[in-house]
Amino acid sequence: MDYKVADLTLADFGRKEIELAEHEMPGLMAMRARYGADQPLQGARIAGSLHMTIQTAVLIETLTALGADVRWATCNIFSTQDHAAAAVVVGPKSAGGTVDNPQGTPVFAWKGETLAEYWDEAEKVFQFKDADGNAIGPNMILDDGGDITLLVHKGTEFEKAGAVPGQDSTDNEEYKEVLRVLARSLDNDPTYWTNIGAGIKGVTEETTTGVLRLYDRFKEGSLLFPAINVNDSVTKSKFDNKYGCRHSLIDGINRGTDVMIAGKTAVICGYGDVGKGSAESLRGQGARVIVTEIDPICALQAAMDGYEVKRLESVVEFADIFITTTGNFDIIRVEHFEKMKHQAIVGNIGHFDNEIDMAGLAKIPGIVKDEIKPQVHQWIFPASDGGQGKKIIVLSEGRLLNLGNATGHPSFVMSNSFTNQVLAQIEIFTKLDEYPIGVYVLPKHLDEEVARLHLDAIGVELTELNQAQADYLGVPVEGPYKSEHYRY
Amino acid sequence: MDYKVADLTLADFGRKEIELAEHEMPGLMAMRARYGADQPLQGARIAGSLHMTIQTAVLIETLTALGADVRWATCNIFSTQDHAAAAVVVGPKSAGGTVDNPQGTPVFAWKGETLAEYWDEAEKVFQFKDADGNAIGPNMILDDGGDITLLVHKGTEFEKAGAVPGQDSTDNEEYKEVLRVLARSLDNDPTYWTNIGAGIKGVTEETTTGVLRLYDRFKEGSLLFPAINVNDSVTKSKFDNKYGCRHSLIDGINRGTDVMIAGKTAVICGYGDVGKGSAESLRGQGARVIVTEIDPICALQAAMDGYEVKRLESVVEFADIFITTTGNFDIIRVEHFEKMKHQAIVGNIGHFDNEIDMAGLAKIPGIVKDEIKPQVHQWIFPASDGGQGKKIIVLSEGRLLNLGNATGHPSFVMSNSFTNQVLAQIEIFTKLDEYPIGVYVLPKHLDEEVARLHLDAIGVELTELNQAQADYLGVPVEGPYKSEHYRY
Amino acid sequence: MDYKVADLTLADFGRKEIELAEHEMPGLMAMRARYGADQPLQGARIAGSLHMTIQTAVLIETLTALGADVRWATCNIFSTQDHAAAAVVVGPKSAGGTVDNPQGTPVFAWKGETLAEYWDEAEKVFQFKDADGNAIGPNMILDDGGDITLLVHKGTEFEKAGAVPGQDSTDNEEYKEVLRVLARSLDNDPTYWTNIGAGIKGVTEETTTGVLRLYDRFKEGSLLFPAINVNDSVTKSKFDNKYGCRHSLIDGINRGTDVMIAGKTAVICGYGDVGKGSAESLRGQGARVIVTEIDPICALQAAMDGYEVKRLESVVEFADIFITTTGNFDIIRVEHFEKMKHQAIVGNIGHFDNEIDMAGLAKIPGIVKDEIKPQVHQWIFPASDGGQGKKIIVLSEGRLLNLGNATGHPSFVMSNSFTNQVLAQIEIFTKLDEYPIGVYVLPKHLDEEVARLHLDAIGVELTELNQAQADYLGVPVEGPYKSEHYRY
Amino acid sequence: MDYKVADLTLADFGRKEIELAEHEMPGLMAMRARYGADQPLQGARIAGSLHMTIQTAVLIETLTALGADVRWATCNIFSTQDHAAAAVVVGPKSAGGTVDNPQGTPVFAWKGETLAEYWDEAEKVFQFKDADGNAIGPNMILDDGGDITLLVHKGTEFEKAGAVPGQDSTDNEEYKEVLRVLARSLDNDPTYWTNIGAGIKGVTEETTTGVLRLYDRFKEGSLLFPAINVNDSVTKSKFDNKYGCRHSLIDGINRGTDVMIAGKTAVICGYGDVGKGSAESLRGQGARVIVTEIDPICALQAAMDGYEVKRLESVVEFADIFITTTGNFDIIRVEHFEKMKHQAIVGNIGHFDNEIDMAGLAKIPGIVKDEIKPQVHQWIFPASDGGQGKKIIVLSEGRLLNLGNATGHPSFVMSNSFTNQVLAQIEIFTKLDEYPIGVYVLPKHLDEEVARLHLDAIGVELTELNQAQADYLGVPVEGPYKSEHYRY
Repeated sequence: MDYKVADLTLADFGRKEIELAEHEMPGLMAMRARYGADQPLQGARIAGSLHMTIQTAVLIETLTALGADVRWATCNIFSTQDHAAAAVVVGPKSAGGTVDNPQGTPVFAWKGETLAEYWDEAEKVFQFKDADGNAIGPNMILDDGGDITLLVHKGTEFEKAGAVPGQDSTDNEEYKEVLRVLARSLDNDPTYWTNIGAGIKGVTEETTTGVLRLYDRFKEGSLLFPAINVNDSVTKSKFDNKYGCRHSLIDGINRGTDVMIAGKTAVICGYGDVGKGSAESLRGQGARVIVTEIDPICALQAAMDGYEVKRLESVVEFADIFITTTGNFDIIRVEHFEKMKHQAIVGNIGHFDNEIDMAGLAKIPGIVKDEIKPQVHQWIFPASDGGQGKKIIVLSEGRLLNLGNATGHPSFVMSNSFTNQVLAQIEIFTKLDEYPIGVYVLPKHLDEEVARLHLDAIGVELTELNQAQADYLGVPVEGPYKSEHYRY
Repeated sequence: MDYKVADLTLADFGRKEIELAEHEMPGLMAMRARYGADQPLQGARIAGSLHMTIQTAVLIETLTALGADVRWATCNIFSTQDHAAAAVVVGPKSAGGTVDNPQGTPVFAWKGETLAEYWDEAEKVFQFKDADGNAIGPNMILDDGGDITLLVHKGTEFEKAGAVPGQDSTDNEEYKEVLRVLARSLDNDPTYWTNIGAGIKGVTEETTTGVLRLYDRFKEGSLLFPAINVNDSVTKSKFDNKYGCRHSLIDGINRGTDVMIAGKTAVICGYGDVGKGSAESLRGQGARVIVTEIDPICALQAAMDGYEVKRLESVVEFADIFITTTGNFDIIRVEHFEKMKHQAIVGNIGHFDNEIDMAGLAKIPGIVKDEIKPQVHQWIFPASDGGQGKKIIVLSEGRLLNLGNATGHPSFVMSNSFTNQVLAQIEIFTKLDEYPIGVYVLPKHLDEEVARLHLDAIGVELTELNQAQADYLGVPVEGPYKSEHYRY
Repeated sequence: MDYKVADLTLADFGRKEIELAEHEMPGLMAMRARYGADQPLQGARIAGSLHMTIQTAVLIETLTALGADVRWATCNIFSTQDHAAAAVVVGPKSAGGTVDNPQGTPVFAWKGETLAEYWDEAEKVFQFKDADGNAIGPNMILDDGGDITLLVHKGTEFEKAGAVPGQDSTDNEEYKEVLRVLARSLDNDPTYWTNIGAGIKGVTEETTTGVLRLYDRFKEGSLLFPAINVNDSVTKSKFDNKYGCRHSLIDGINRGTDVMIAGKTAVICGYGDVGKGSAESLRGQGARVIVTEIDPICALQAAMDGYEVKRLESVVEFADIFITTTGNFDIIRVEHFEKMKHQAIVGNIGHFDNEIDMAGLAKIPGIVKDEIKPQVHQWIFPASDGGQGKKIIVLSEGRLLNLGNATGHPSFVMSNSFTNQVLAQIEIFTKLDEYPIGVYVLPKHLDEEVARLHLDAIGVELTELNQAQADYLGVPVEGPYKSEHYRY
Repeated sequence: MDYKVADLTLADFGRKEIELAEHEMPGLMAMRARYGADQPLQGARIAGSLHMTIQTAVLIETLTALGADVRWATCNIFSTQDHAAAAVVVGPKSAGGTVDNPQGTPVFAWKGETLAEYWDEAEKVFQFKDADGNAIGPNMILDDGGDITLLVHKGTEFEKAGAVPGQDSTDNEEYKEVLRVLARSLDNDPTYWTNIGAGIKGVTEETTTGVLRLYDRFKEGSLLFPAINVNDSVTKSKFDNKYGCRHSLIDGINRGTDVMIAGKTAVICGYGDVGKGSAESLRGQGARVIVTEIDPICALQAAMDGYEVKRLESVVEFADIFITTTGNFDIIRVEHFEKMKHQAIVGNIGHFDNEIDMAGLAKIPGIVKDEIKPQVHQWIFPASDGGQGKKIIVLSEGRLLNLGNATGHPSFVMSNSFTNQVLAQIEIFTKLDEYPIGVYVLPKHLDEEVARLHLDAIGVELTELNQAQADYLGVPVEGPYKSEHYRY
C-alpha cells in the first residue's frame, strides 16, 4: 500500500471532488462523449449565474468541453463551495483530466458574499474578451432565478430612460444594490447594457421563479431574446425539485442542528414538487409531518399521501420543525414566530429568503440574533422579566438551507437538470432561427433523452416497445411516448 | 336495542350501500346541494356506459337529481355489482331518500354478461322516450372506454357506406359483436345511428383509452360532437388512477387469492399513474416490487422511488405476482407464461384484457383452464409426462382485477372522478356554443373546485392566500393557482 | 384448451383452496416431508380448537400425516370457513392428494354458531374411539385462547367439588354456556373431565390470552399437564401478530366496508405486535394513523415510527376508523361511541370482543342495530328529535374483524405459527419426561428451524457463518445464534 | 435586534451546543431535576470511556450534577468532538449554566488520536485525587466496548502472573498498545491494577460487544466486580441501535460523500437492530436495499419488511453501497472488494472496524490509499496496464462511520441510553449489596421510566389503565406492564 497524504490546496480538493461527481453525472459525461468532437458551442460566450457548487463545476466544464467560453457567478450569497470555485478557476490541468482547458474558467463567487459583493460579481460575468483581447459581451446566458437576466433587462430599460432610479426609491435591500451597480454602469457607458442585450442570442433558465419573470416580460413585450424554460422539463422539475429536496432537506437539518428528526412534528409549508420531496424526506426519518397548502388539489394529494393538512395557525404552537417550500412570500411571519416553542427550528428550501419574514423577525423589540455556527442562528426572544426568553433556531438566515447548511442537491439529480441546460444552450445557440423571442420548453424527445442517459448508471433495464405495440399506442418505437399534457 | 334483521332484497341491500357511499362521495353530494334547485340537466337525456357499481349509482342519481333522464349500461362484462344495478332500477323511493326519483333509472347490466349480451345491452341505452312516449335518442353521452361512442360513430359510418362489414372481416371476438349489432340495426333502420349522432350534443369520457380514440377521431375529422376529456382532469387522473389503484389492487388480490403479499416478489408492468399506485399498494404490504417500463422518464421515477427496474424477461422466472398497468397490449405473453413459477399470480389493472395474451394462453397445447371460484382460474400446464404440470393463477380472466375480484375503486376517490363527470355534463349541456367539435379538458378552476369539495370530509384545512401573496404569485386569491402545464 | 367448469361442492372448493394453501405453507409441507415416514404422532389423539380456516385445514392434515388422530372445533363463532371445514371432513381422497387419509377428520364447526352451539361443539373434540371402537379421550390438546383447556380444568375442578355453579352465578353470557355444558356432563358422568384430564400428556397453546391463563394456573398450582407456549416463539409472535395483521386488517376493513382508507384518520389502540402491524397496514394505504398506548416504551416506539400518540379521548371526535389491538378490555366504551362522527368505523383485531364495550353499546336507549350485511352492522343512534341520528359501523360485532370480515391471516404467515404447533406437539408427545408440569417455550434452535423452512419459498439466500466467525461470536455455525433475551 | 457575532473559542462553541443538546435530552435533565438535591453519586469517582461527543458531555455533567467526580476518555480514536471535550473541561461556568461545576471535568480525548495515544489516555481516567490531593483510583466504571474494563482485568491478571507478555506475542496492533501500557505500569507499581480493581464497586457497560466480554468473564470466573448491562435495556437496544442508526447512517454517508442515495442499490450486512435501522434509513431516501443475514429469523423479518435477502457474493458486483452492521468480523473481505464496481462506497456502523477487512485491503499489491478528506479515502486499485484502476471509497477507515463522518446518534435517542447509564450508576453505587458479582440488566420498571421521561418532549399522551383493566391484565396500574421475555 502506498499512502497519499491529504495535504491539499483548496483547488486540488475541489478537483478530487469534481472527479467523484463526474461519475455521478452520467448525463453530462454523455454530453461530452457525444458532442466533444463536434464542438457545437464553439463561439459561444456564456455568462452563467448558478450556485457555484461541485456539480456546477461539472456543468461548466461540460460547456467548455463543447467549445464554449464561460464566465460564472453564483446566484446565492451562501451557496458557493469555495473548493469548487477554486477548482474551476484552476481547471483540469493534468493529462488525466476529462477536459482539456489548461487555463480554467473565471469564477466570481465565494461563500458568504455581502449583497454588494454579490451584485458586483454578477456584473463581471458579462466581461469577455474576443480573440484579439478586446472587451466583448456574452452571446448566451445561463441563469438561475433570473438575476443576471434582470441586470441586462433593467440596464437596457434604464439606459433607454436615460436614468437609474435612486437607491432610496426602494425598501428592498437587494434591489438597492442592483440600482447602485446599474447607476455606476450608466455613468460609465450609457449604452453598455443595451449593447450587451443586443448581443445575446438567448437565455436558459433553471428555476420556477426565473421562469415566471421571463413569462411576465414576454407578456408585457419587454423580453429581449428567446428563453428556454429548463425548469419545466420533466427531468428537471419532477426530479431535482422532488428527489433533490428529499435528499438535501434532512442533510441540511442534520448538518445544521444534529437534532433527531424521529418523533418530531414537522410542518411543511407547500406541497408542490419541493414540498412533496421535503415531506417524504422527514417522514423517512420518522417525523410526523403536517402540510399547509393553498391549492385544493395539492392539499388533497397531501391527504391521500397520509399527511395531516392544516393551517399554520392551527399547529404553530406545538410543532418542532417548520420548512417553507412555497415559492411565495411571507409564509412564516412574526405572528407565527411569537407562538412557536422554545428551540423550534425554522428553515426554507423554497428559493427565496422572503418565504420567512426575516426582516420582521429582526425587528421584534429586544430580540437578539446569536450565531451558533455559520448559517445556524438562535434568535433569543426577550423574556417578560427582561432576561432571555425562548430561542428559535433559524437555518441559513432563511435562505436555501440545503445549500447553506449542506451541499445542495446531489450530483446524480443535478446531472438531469444540467443535461437539460446543456441541451438547451446547444438548442438556442445552434438553431436560433427556430426560436423567435418567446419562452420555450425543450421538446419531449430531449426530455426523454436526458432520462435515458441516467439509467445505465443505476442498473435500470428499459423495456422496448415492439412495432405493433407502438402502433397500438400511436407513438414511435423510440419515443416520445407521452402527450404534452401528461403529468408523470 | 331494537334489532333489524338483514333479510334484504338485492335492491334493498344496494340502497343501504348507496346510502353509505353517499357519505363518502362529498363531491357528488355537493353537486346535488348546489344545483338541485336549478336543475341544470333538465331536458338532458344521458346515455351512460360505465362500470355499474355502487359509486356509479350515486353518480346516476346525482345526474337525475339535477334533472336528467338517464339510461345505463356497464363498460365491462364482469364489473357490475348486481345489488347496485337493482337499487338504481328501484330508485330511492322513501321520503328519506336523497333523490326524489320514484321510478328509478333503467339499467342494462349484470355481473358476468357474455360479449353478445354486453353489446346488446349497450345498444339499449340509446332508447329513450319523449314526453309523449315516442322513441327518441339521447342528447348526451357519458362514456368509459368509448364503447357506446363507438356504436354511434361506427353506426353512422356504416350507414353512410350503406353496409356493415361481415363478422368474418375481423378476428377480434368483441368487434364481431359490434358488427352483429350494427348489422341488425342497419337492417332495421338504415339511418338509425346517423339520427342518434345528430341528436347528441356531446360526450364526456372517463378513461385514457377512450380519450385516445376521441383525439384520433378529431384528428381524422370524423368526430361527430364535442367531447370533454374527464380523464385528464388532475382530480381524475392523478387520484382515481393512482390512489384508487393503490386501494383496489391489493383488495382484488386479497379477495381473489388470500395470498400473503409480504415477502413476495411482484412485477408491476408500467409506471404511469396506475403503476405508481399499484407499486405503492404492494410495497405497503411488504412485497419486493420490480417495475418494467418503456418510457425512460417513468423508469427513472421508479428508480428514484426505490424500485428495481428490469425487463420482464429478466425476472419472469422468479417473481410471484405479475400485474399489468400499461394501457398497451401484449405485455405478458405466452413466452412469459412458459417461464413462470408454479402458482405465479397474474392480473391486469390497466383497462383492457389484451395487456395479457389470454388468447395465446388458451391456445397452449394441453393446457387446462380450471375455475377455483368466479374470476379466479388456475391454468394447468401439461407436464412432460402428460400429467398436470405447473399451475398459473389468472385473475378476472385478464380483465380489470380490481373490479372483477373486488369492488373497484372506493367511493371517495370515485367522487372526485364523478364530480368531474357531472361538471362536464353540465358544461356541455348548458354551454354548447362554447364547445365547437373538439376534445376539451375542464378548466382548471373547476378541477380545483372538485378537489375543494372533498377536503372537509377528511378534515383538511386549506390555507388562504392574502392579496399580497396572490399578487406576488400573479394569481387570483381564489385560484386557479397553477399554469396549465403544471404536473402536480 | 380444456375448460373445467366450477360447479363444485363446498368440500371440493375447500380441497382446491387447501391445495393452493399447501404451496404457501412450506413449513408444514416440510414437516410432512421430514416426518411423514417416521410417524412421530402415531398414537396421538389430538383435541384441537382453533379458527377452522383453510390454513388450519393444512395444519390438521399435517398432524394426521404424521400419524395423529384428530378432532377439531373452532375457537371463534364467526371465524369458520365452511368450505375448509367440509374439505377436512371429506379428506384428501384422491391419489393425487398429499395426505392419505381417506376417511377425513371430524370437524365440529360452522360459520355463525350461537354461543350455545359453540360450547356444545367444543365438548365434542374430546370424543375419540380406540381401536376397538370404545369411547376414549384425547391424549393431546392443541388450543387457541384456551377454551377447551378451560373445559378440562373447570370440569375437573367442579367434579372435585361435586357440583357445577348455577348459570345465574355469572353475568358473562359465554361463561353461562360453559356452566351449562359442564353441569350436563357432571350429571352424565361425575368423573368425566377428571378422567379426560388424567389422560392428557400436554397442551400447545397458540395465543397470548391462552398463555396468560396457563401461567396463572401454573402459578396457582392447578395446571393439570405441561404446556408449550407457542405464542412466544419468535416465529409466531413477531410474524403472525405483526405481519399477519398488516395483511388482514385492511383486508377485513375493505371487504366489510369498501371505504377508502387514504386520507382517513385511523386510531390504533395498542402498539404491541398486533398494533405495530395494524398501524403499518393502514399507513401503507395512506391513512393518518394515531396510536393510543399505556406502556411508555411502546408509546415511544410508536412516536419514533412517526405516529402521533394520543389518548382516545383527545381524538375520538374527529377520527374515522377505530381499531383495538390491546388484549385488554373496555378500550372503546359508550362514552367514546357517544362522541364519534357519523359513519365512524369501529373494529377489533385484538382477540376478545370485550375490547369494545358491545354490551354497553346495545344498552344505549333508543339505539338500533341494523345489519348491512353479515358481520357489518350500523348502530343507529336516536336523534334528539326522535328520528335517526348518527350511525356507527361496527365490524364483526366487535370480534376479530380479520376473521369475521375477511379470511384471517394468510397461509404463509400461518405456516410459521403452525409449524411451531406441529413441532410443539411432537416435542411433548415424544419427550414427555423432559416436560414436567409447567409452561415452556420451544427451544431457540427449533424457532430458527421454523424460519429456515420458510426462506426458500420466497427466494431468500441465507449467509453461512464460517467457523472463525462462529467462534468470534461464540455460537455454533448452525445456530442458535442469539441469546434468550434477544428481542428481534 | 442586537447581533452577537460568533467568534467563539472551541469551548464556548461546545457550551452552546451542549445547551441545545440539553433541551433534546429530557431524560438526563429529569435525572438532574429529580436527584440533584439528593446527590446520590456523592463520593462516586467514575472512570468513563465513551465517545466524547456533545451528548456525552450532557451525560458527564449529569453525573457531576448528581455528586460524582468524573474522568473521561473516548472509546474510539475518531469519534471525539473536540468542542465537546473542550467544553466539558471548562465546565458550565456562568450562573446561567445548568450545572454548577466551575472547575469542569478532566477529559483525555481528541479527534484523530493514534492507537498509542488512545491507550495512554485511557489509562489516565483511573487517576483521581482524594480530598487531601493524594492519588486514588475510581470506585465506578462507565464503559463503552469494555476497553477500560479490560485494562483493569488484564492489568490484574498480569500482576498476578508477575509479567506482561511482550508486544510481539500478538499481531493485533491495538493489543500491542495495551501490552505496552500495562508493561509500563507493572514496572512502575506491580500492584497498581490489582488495587484499582479492588476499589471498584461496579461497571455499567453500553454496548453488545462490551456486554459479551463481561458475560464471558463472569462465566470463566474472572469478573472482578458486578456489571450492569445497559445495552439490553429496551430503551437502549431497541432505540439507540435502531432509531439512532436510522438517523446517523445517511447522515454519515451524506457528509462523507454527498452521493445521491436514491436509485442506488445498497447492501446492509446484518438485520439486527442496527441493520433494521440502517435499512430503513436508506429506503427512506429511495435506495433499493438488499440485506444479508446468517440468522433465519432475522432473514425472514427482512423479507417480510420487503427487502431482498441475498448472500453478499450474489450482489457484490452490482451494488453501489455496502454497510456492515453485524457485530461479527470479516464480513466484507478482499474477495468482495475485488469484485466491486468503480466508486462503490463501503462503510461500517456495527461497532468494530474488523467487520471490513481493512488490513487485507491494504495488503492488495499495488493498491493506493488516497485521502479525499478526513475519514474519506479512495482505495485505488492497480489497473492491468499498471495505471490507476477502479477506486473504492471507504468511510472512516472501516470504523463507525456515523461517528467518524457525522456526529453520531442524535441527542434525543442518546438521552434514552444515557438515562439508563445514570440509573445504572446510581443502582450499583447506592445498592451494592443487592448486586453480588454478576451481570445484570436494569429492572423493567426503570426501563419503562426511562421511556416515560421522554414522552412529554415530543407531545406523546400516555393512556392510563384503570384498576379494572390492570386487574384484567394482572399488572399494576403504574407498570411494569410486560413480562421479561416480551420482545417489543
